[in-house]
Amino acid sequence: MKKLINSPENVVREELEGIALAHADRLRVCFDPFYIARKDAPTKGKVGLISGGGSGHEPLHGGFVGLGMLDAACPGHVFTSPTPDQMFEAAKAVNGGAGILQIVKNYTGDVMNFDLAADMLREESIEVATVLTDDDVAVQDSLYTAGRRGVGLTVLMEKILGAAAEKGMSLGQIKDLGEAIRASGRSMGMALTPCTVPHLGKPSFELKEDEIEVGIGIHGEPGRRRAALASADEITAMLMEPILTDLPFKSGESIILFVNGMGGTPLIELYIVFRKAVQIAEKHGLKVVRNLVGSYITSLEMAGTSITALRADDTVVGLWDAPVNTPGLRWGV
Amino acid sequence: MKKLINSPENVVREELEGIALAHADRLRVCFDPFYIARKDAPTKGKVGLISGGGSGHEPLHGGFVGLGMLDAACPGHVFTSPTPDQMFEAAKAVNGGAGILQIVKNYTGDVMNFDLAADMLREESIEVATVLTDDDVAVQDSLYTAGRRGVGLTVLMEKILGAAAEKGMSLGQIKDLGEAIRASGRSMGMALTPCTVPHLGKPSFELKEDEIEVGIGIHGEPGRRRAALASADEITAMLMEPILTDLPFKSGESIILFVNGMGGTPLIELYIVFRKAVQIAEKHGLKVVRNLVGSYITSLEMAGTSITALRADDTVVGLWDAPVNTPGLRWGV
Repeated sequence: MKKLINSPENVVREELEGIALAHADRLRVCFDPFYIARKDAPTKGKVGLISGGGSGHEPLHGGFVGLGMLDAACPGHVFTSPTPDQMFEAAKAVNGGAGILQIVKNYTGDVMNFDLAADMLREESIEVATVLTDDDVAVQDSLYTAGRRGVGLTVLMEKILGAAAEKGMSLGQIKDLGEAIRASGRSMGMALTPCTVPHLGKPSFELKEDEIEVGIGIHGEPGRRRAALASADEITAMLMEPILTDLPFKSGESIILFVNGMGGTPLIELYIVFRKAVQIAEKHGLKVVRNLVGSYITSLEMAGTSITALRADDTVVGLWDAPVNTPGLRWGV
Repeated sequence: MKKLINSPENVVREELEGIALAHADRLRVCFDPFYIARKDAPTKGKVGLISGGGSGHEPLHGGFVGLGMLDAACPGHVFTSPTPDQMFEAAKAVNGGAGILQIVKNYTGDVMNFDLAADMLREESIEVATVLTDDDVAVQDSLYTAGRRGVGLTVLMEKILGAAAEKGMSLGQIKDLGEAIRASGRSMGMALTPCTVPHLGKPSFELKEDEIEVGIGIHGEPGRRRAALASADEITAMLMEPILTDLPFKSGESIILFVNGMGGTPLIELYIVFRKAVQIAEKHGLKVVRNLVGSYITSLEMAGTSITALRADDTVVGLWDAPVNTPGLRWGV
């Protein structure tokens, strides 16, 4: 196992120490229990946005804490849900009195633990709402989920709802907006190579030199099918066609198009995928009004890509364009 | 060779098509010859900053074109210098009448071609100055250079000189500032795994499962030594000690510390390296006043890291903090 780590047990703690040192100007890291919060939180009267999940998907979620996005994020161990006490403490730390919105990727462990945390918060008379992401069209159920997995849409959800909270929208309004976004976005991913979870020490699956996994999840869980290695254009079509036909996206609609790297994929390849994804979207009559190209929701060092498309009306575009100041996404500030 | 590409010959053209589609709001891509320019260039009365080099190091250089950084960048084929006509056309396109500054990584091909381009520009009565980066302490000469290689400092140089140009500094002033930065920054890198140049189709070197290459260049060229796989803390020390003792950095100085990923290294590992790098810097009495953690000067899908330290007085920090609006680095805008 070739990794820049010291010991599997300390990966998350030491990563958090690095994040605390790198972003002390705007983030505060709590080590007991683990969470990352905006340094200036709580913001009085603003809905507090929290998320979290297993580590290994960086910059998701900790890298999206800051003005205009999350108020706090709870990292679990690698590919393992954080615990309810993390979410409970994080939510209390960023509670500005207008309620807490939890953004949760649809994985059984995450859903259960955020539900428990919500119960704990309600016992303290803190209002809580939850929005799931379940945008992965590859599988209906999986090893880790009832229903579809939450993947790339989570990044867009955190940005857009973060802007909504910053604008002073209420918990109910943000929850409704979140459900609308959940219903309007779809994703699918693929892997060229597997990844190795540090405490397991060996790749989570194996792929031959001429094989790819289509429809992979962000933990290396199996997808739709094993396929022969193909060209970037062919692979992009394998992802875009199921995404576009699932919702379905309709001719004339505007979308935000997000081409994501899985951690071990260089940017040069992502732009090649993006090029073809735009061509396919335009062939379907869609207008790509905003985009994001880079590694934002990753699977350790896995090579591969995922694509997310989200319907984007003027409200969504306005919230997307609003200022954001996080380690992972930043503009307007 | 597992890559998201269509054919080795078309990698750079198709990448540029993707960049043109993704960043049409602020960049203009010329395909004959290849260069990427600010959409709003030239800026009258502002020194035009250009750079370039082989592709495969993204986001360097094309991802650093925009307000507060480069006016244009010239991509060569993968790991191959761009040609003088690219630099000549790019410089003419962004010439605002105050001269052109070329930022050139010290590789023989790049240096020669930028020199030829400078001669061509002078024949057109365009004033030109050049600043080299040669910050890699690993080797004195290499397969591709007379003298040290230009690596991570290039990213910091482009940001800082870009801000200087934006502030209206003259060509002579920017050249002097560039030389001061060149003299104040040092870098070193290492690889866990090799990378594969698309048109070669096989890894540029081989490393056993328990081996790393210390002092590697950004083209996979050999470094100081092959070493046994070590912990993140040990590897960080292998890089930091030569960097700090070379200049040398002196106790009490302030630095910008840049921990870079080589393309296939996930962010979780870079924060672990950054943590230790800060600890070592502080042990040497240095104050880390600004930092950058991420994959900004890469070697295709190579896994590994490089570290750059740059002395940072108030002028340098002020220029670092100035607004920048590029695909790769963005803040304040």
